[in-house]
Amino acid sequence: MDDFHVDPWKVEGKVDYDELIKKFGITKIDNELLERMKKHVKKLHYLLTRDIYFANRDLNWILDEYEKGNKFYIYTGIAPSGSMTLAHLIPFVFTQWLQKEFDAEVYIQIPDEEKYLAKKNIDLETIHRLAYEDALHIISLGFNQDKTKIFFDTEYANTLYKQAVRVAKHITFSNVKDAFGMTNETNIGWIFYTSMQAVPAFLKSVEEKRNVPCLIPLAVDQDVHFRLARDAIAKLGYYKPAVIHAKFLPALNGSQKMSASDPLNTIYLNDDEETVQKKIQRALTGQQATAELQKKYGGDPEKCVVCQYYKYLFEPDDSKLEQIFDGERNGTLLAGEHKKDLAKRINEFLKDHKNKIEQNRNKLEKYILR
Amino acid sequence: MDDFHVDPWKVEGKVDYDELIKKFGITKIDNELLERMKKHVKKLHYLLTRDIYFANRDLNWILDEYEKGNKFYIYTGIAPSGSMTLAHLIPFVFTQWLQKEFDAEVYIQIPDEEKYLAKKNIDLETIHRLAYEDALHIISLGFNQDKTKIFFDTEYANTLYKQAVRVAKHITFSNVKDAFGMTNETNIGWIFYTSMQAVPAFLKSVEEKRNVPCLIPLAVDQDVHFRLARDAIAKLGYYKPAVIHAKFLPALNGSQKMSASDPLNTIYLNDDEETVQKKIQRALTGQQATAELQKKYGGDPEKCVVCQYYKYLFEPDDSKLEQIFDGERNGTLLAGEHKKDLAKRINEFLKDHKNKIEQNRNKLEKYILR
Repeated sequence: MDDFHVDPWKVEGKVDYDELIKKFGITKIDNELLERMKKHVKKLHYLLTRDIYFANRDLNWILDEYEKGNKFYIYTGIAPSGSMTLAHLIPFVFTQWLQKEFDAEVYIQIPDEEKYLAKKNIDLETIHRLAYEDALHIISLGFNQDKTKIFFDTEYANTLYKQAVRVAKHITFSNVKDAFGMTNETNIGWIFYTSMQAVPAFLKSVEEKRNVPCLIPLAVDQDVHFRLARDAIAKLGYYKPAVIHAKFLPALNGSQKMSASDPLNTIYLNDDEETVQKKIQRALTGQQATAELQKKYGGDPEKCVVCQYYKYLFEPDDSKLEQIFDGERNGTLLAGEHKKDLAKRINEFLKDHKNKIEQNRNKLEKYILR
Repeated sequence: MDDFHVDPWKVEGKVDYDELIKKFGITKIDNELLERMKKHVKKLHYLLTRDIYFANRDLNWILDEYEKGNKFYIYTGIAPSGSMTLAHLIPFVFTQWLQKEFDAEVYIQIPDEEKYLAKKNIDLETIHRLAYEDALHIISLGFNQDKTKIFFDTEYANTLYKQAVRVAKHITFSNVKDAFGMTNETNIGWIFYTSMQAVPAFLKSVEEKRNVPCLIPLAVDQDVHFRLARDAIAKLGYYKPAVIHAKFLPALNGSQKMSASDPLNTIYLNDDEETVQKKIQRALTGQQATAELQKKYGGDPEKCVVCQYYKYLFEPDDSKLEQIFDGERNGTLLAGEHKKDLAKRINEFLKDHKNKIEQNRNKLEKYILR
């Protein structure tokens, strides 16, 4: 038995990412690959150098093609089930950077049926409302309007369903049983769903009637969809998409993955200032039980959720991050101050983000495909 | 073991329709029900009085509602896999009559993904082309343009997929395994497909935001889709659709069901005159081995494919049909003449139908929903 479990609908236990690489058959992003990427960008994104985007499938091939002048497009997405959280920012922040550095088109799928099929208590209308909110959050992070397309599964099904059917023909119930642990009691919509998620990975090739490389940034729990889809897509005669995998942003209580369905341990993009302060006050730190002990022995930034939030999202400057980590390690940074600083930083970001949302509200329609 | 098998993709052996009624849990259309229908129509259609539409689910309920002023709409369809055959005419001839007599709206679904998912060797582009041909054949049979809507699954998925997802949430793999005999090796598109077929049975209720009764005329092999769907639809809060079931038109060789995938034993609506003559020449009759024996002992109209084609499609006049059956029984009608007459009748119909197709070609778009 493994002591952790990762699938698109459940992450349990303490994830060993090296073990996960073996289990999923994916490849670590090593220095050689980072050096290769570096040649094509102004500066490597901290999400890469900090080993947060830590693994990949066929990223070298994407760069081969790119170097031959065969540009890739990017596909990412979000399945709405509640308001967007800090964890959801990661793939979009990274995708936005990739878009800018590689002048790439971006397809963003918002599967507004997924959580309805996979969860007991959420209705399609609620999800659909959340889907539009999510889209607004996403464009407010700063995507190039001319090169970014957003679509909702139920509203873009005239395009998606036909292609999903083509994928589905090459995936059996045995395949989804093995890949996702589905059972005879799984509903047939959920069984089919992975085919819908596969479509944007070759949709541009369908549209352009030529093979276009596709790169998918995702949190590593989503990899299994593409493990299945890559073979099906190849059978249809398209390039297998490349994938780049992120680790999970921890929840406030230190558990492995911040989840929209666990409000107490999650910061939502629409939390107000006070809520953020209160939530961060409750965050797990890597510190000792008392200020005295902390000053004496120091804490562990790897276990400290506050440090991790800086690392993943709120301190892009490596030397400043090192100062924070050092403060945690050598006991000079006490929990109260540490948390207050982070809450302030998050609230600054959210305030700015909320302003951008208001500025972008009337631009949303321009991004949406139907 | 049963000595026959009926599912939407396979009919084998000699079907015992009384046995099928028990097996499927459907209800025979008895004289009482016919008398009740008779009150609402000018004259009962021969497809009813000849026991070709022989069974039903909830037809009495549809009439209850109708008598209360709650009109029903009709949903039928055809899954393209080859050119349309004589067998395909039956539900559309009957639906057209129902439309006229009950002033009913008609929804016609053309699932242009079904055979792709259920068969090995057919591609979506071929099916899509056939789907448009089928639609043209159908409207040429004379549907009321203002009250008839035709849609193709892949082109109307913006409407259908969302509703299919709602159905799918209430159907498990166990359900489709039991109902359709699906296995772990069945592809996940085919597993999901039945949810798409369910949608038109409650779509008008969704559109009108009130419950509208739905009547589905179909060949009895399709019943299983709605056995599953009726429960799911009820869980969504809509009326269960009523169903009226037809027997199968026999193939030229006398086997149970004429099938588009068996060209030698099938007459297609686009067969030319000579082909029809040749095919009918090969048709199984219920006659004796020689003209002498036939004159002496007579034949069996129930076994005679030629007699059956008159009964199902080409002789609406009961007294004339009786003359033909008598001729077969008492040996006065010999095979050669019998077949020549029928071929002539079919060719007259097809000639007229082909003219109508030319007249309707530019009207097709008016029927189609996207």
